[in-house]
Amino acid sequence: MSLSNSRRSTVTRLRERARTDRAELYAVLDAGLICHLGLIRDGAPVVVPTGYVRIGDTVYVHGSTGAGYVRNIDGAPVCLTVTHLDGIVYARSAFHHSMNYRSAVVHGVARAVTDAEEKSTALRSIVEQLAPGSWTHARRPDRRELAATAVFALDLAEASVKVRTGPPIDDDEDVAAGGRWAGVLPVRTIFERPQPAPTLVAGEPVPEHVRNR
Amino acid sequence: MSLSNSRRSTVTRLRERARTDRAELYAVLDAGLICHLGLIRDGAPVVVPTGYVRIGDTVYVHGSTGAGYVRNIDGAPVCLTVTHLDGIVYARSAFHHSMNYRSAVVHGVARAVTDAEEKSTALRSIVEQLAPGSWTHARRPDRRELAATAVFALDLAEASVKVRTGPPIDDDEDVAAGGRWAGVLPVRTIFERPQPAPTLVAGEPVPEHVRNR
Repeated sequence: MSLSNSRRSTVTRLRERARTDRAELYAVLDAGLICHLGLIRDGAPVVVPTGYVRIGDTVYVHGSTGAGYVRNIDGAPVCLTVTHLDGIVYARSAFHHSMNYRSAVVHGVARAVTDAEEKSTALRSIVEQLAPGSWTHARRPDRRELAATAVFALDLAEASVKVRTGPPIDDDEDVAAGGRWAGVLPVRTIFERPQPAPTLVAGEPVPEHVRNR
Repeated sequence: MSLSNSRRSTVTRLRERARTDRAELYAVLDAGLICHLGLIRDGAPVVVPTGYVRIGDTVYVHGSTGAGYVRNIDGAPVCLTVTHLDGIVYARSAFHHSMNYRSAVVHGVARAVTDAEEKSTALRSIVEQLAPGSWTHARRPDRRELAATAVFALDLAEASVKVRTGPPIDDDEDVAAGGRWAGVLPVRTIFERPQPAPTLVAGEPVPEHVRNR
C-alpha cells in the first residue's frame, strides 16, 4: 500500500530522498519520542513538541485538557512531523553541506478520542512509547487523571517520508581539486545512567525496564 | 527585555515551566541543529524540519528555491520551534510520566532576504551552526549556488520558552506507598567518530574543526 499520492505529500525536491514504502513510515514514527505537531490558531501556524504513538495506521497524541492547543482540535487540520537527525554531512563545498536524517510528515484532520477503550489503549501506548515497561510498573491513571487528559487521533492516510543517508555528494570539480575534507559526522541519541528520584528510599535498585533501556 | 506578552506566546499550562528571559531563548535556539518550521499551505498546517541559525534577534532559515514550502513564504505567518529532549521522567504514576526538555517557539511573519550581504552572512552562519569551521574550510558558494538558495528571516519579537528539568513530581500518596521506581533517564545527543567520504584520498587526516566537534 503506498503512503499517499496527494499533492502536498508528494516530495517535490530531491525526489531520491523520498520513500514510498509504508514500512519506512512506520519505522520512522516508531523510532521517535517527540513529534512536532502543527495546527492553525487565529490564522497562524503553531508548532508544539509532544509525545505520541503509532498504533496500526493511526497516530495518537495526548495533551492536558488545559493546554491551549488541545481545545478545538477535534476536526481541525493538523500536520505531525517526526525527525531523526543521523549525521552532519561535510562536503567540499558549503553548498553541498547537508544532514543525514529520517523524517515523516503526516497530514490530516485530528479526531478527538472519546471512546473509553480506545483512549485507554492510546494512553497506555503513549506511555510505553516514552517509557517501555512503565505501564505495568507504575500506578495506572484514575478517573480524575483520565478526565484531565485529552487524546486525539490522526490517520496515516496522507504522509511522506524522506531519508538521506550516506556520504556527501560533491561536484566533480571539487572532488578533483582535492585538499578539502568530506565525510559524515554521525549523530546519535543515547540514554545515560538513570538518576533515581531524591524521594526514593536510598539504595532502591533501578528496575529492569529502566536499566535495559 | 522580556520575550513577548502576546496571548499565543503566553504559556497557559504548567506556567512553572515557562521562562521569560531572553538569554534562555538564545540558549535554546543556539544549542540546536534542526528546527521545525510551521506554515500554512492550502488552509492546512505544514511542518518541515530544516537548518537554521540565530543572529542577534533574528532567526534565519534557508531552503532550495525549488522546495515547495519556500515559494510564497515572504510575508507569510510562520512558527519556528526548536526542541531538545533531555530526559525521560519516570514517575510512580503513569499520569506523571513526563520528559525533561527545553523548547523555544517563535511566532512571526517570514521575510525573504534579498540583500546580498545579509543573505551571505546568514548562509555562512547557517553552515557554521551545522558544521563549525566549514565556511573557512569548504569552497564558498558561487553565484549559481547562491541563486538556488532562498533565505528568509524571522524576528524574535514574539516567542515562548519552556524548560522542564529535575525529578518526577509524584502525588504524595504514591511516594508514601513506595514500591515503585521513580527517576530520570537522561537523553543526550552525541557525535560519533567521523566517517570520511569514499572519494577522499586514503589516509587523509580528519581536520581539526571536525575532529573537535
